[in-house]
Amino acid sequence: MRADNEIRPGELAVPLVETTDASLVFIGRIQTPWSSREECPRQGRIDGPICRITLFEPWTQALDGISGYDRLEVLYWLHRARRDLVRQCAHSDPLARGTFALRSPMRPNPIGTSIVALEDVDGTTLTVRGLDCLDGTPLLDIKPPRHRLC
Amino acid sequence: MRADNEIRPGELAVPLVETTDASLVFIGRIQTPWSSREECPRQGRIDGPICRITLFEPWTQALDGISGYDRLEVLYWLHRARRDLVRQCAHSDPLARGTFALRSPMRPNPIGTSIVALEDVDGTTLTVRGLDCLDGTPLLDIKPPRHRLC
Repeated sequence: MRADNEIRPGELAVPLVETTDASLVFIGRIQTPWSSREECPRQGRIDGPICRITLFEPWTQALDGISGYDRLEVLYWLHRARRDLVRQCAHSDPLARGTFALRSPMRPNPIGTSIVALEDVDGTTLTVRGLDCLDGTPLLDIKPPRHRLC
Repeated sequence: MRADNEIRPGELAVPLVETTDASLVFIGRIQTPWSSREECPRQGRIDGPICRITLFEPWTQALDGISGYDRLEVLYWLHRARRDLVRQCAHSDPLARGTFALRSPMRPNPIGTSIVALEDVDGTTLTVRGLDCLDGTPLLDIKPPRHRLC
């Protein structure tokens, strides 16, 4: 388990300046079975456990039409992740690599993205499978999945 | 062409409160061939035109290892998009739908995501295909693509 401020051999942190180039609003909250990073899967699976996404007002009105999709792209804020590592070791890999070569939550803008299976829509709550984030993770966006053009 | 503050029949805007739940830092800039929203493709194509992503310091150090991927996920800030529409009409569709049922740039947190083909890495600049955003779009993140588990 990694302590919050641990730096492993080969890892590199940069000084963080308190820059705000843009601001985010949390539009909902995600319930998952995982209360620590060690429990979270490395990547969500479409056949993984049920998770729930609850929208805050006034964004519930933006759900109209969503039940027509069986897959959705979900964006969320990795609120417990440090943002200063430019080189880091992946889980159980002693070789440090650049942050952009990893899907680690620790990144300058800690935004997670997953493709989920939409199981149910009940008012302001979506039931989905395929997430990988901590219980209580703030929601940033929901989009239909992109078409496969490649 | 849509004027900046135009509301079409069936569309719905909500009052925006000046909430900042989290802050983003722009880590680079994206060069594309498109200087107006009307020119942008609806969705990037892996065989689309060459675009360039240039990283700012100190984030260039986080690129180490990235050239091993032929596809990358890119996140960017849709800096010209309004954020207050909860219902909107897609391009050339008179029926308004919930914002989360569309991949429109106009959303509470206007973050774009694309899967791109990595053509070249030259110092702090990546040459890619597959983007759909305006020239000058701020970069938020680069990740390896997720594995296909579904």
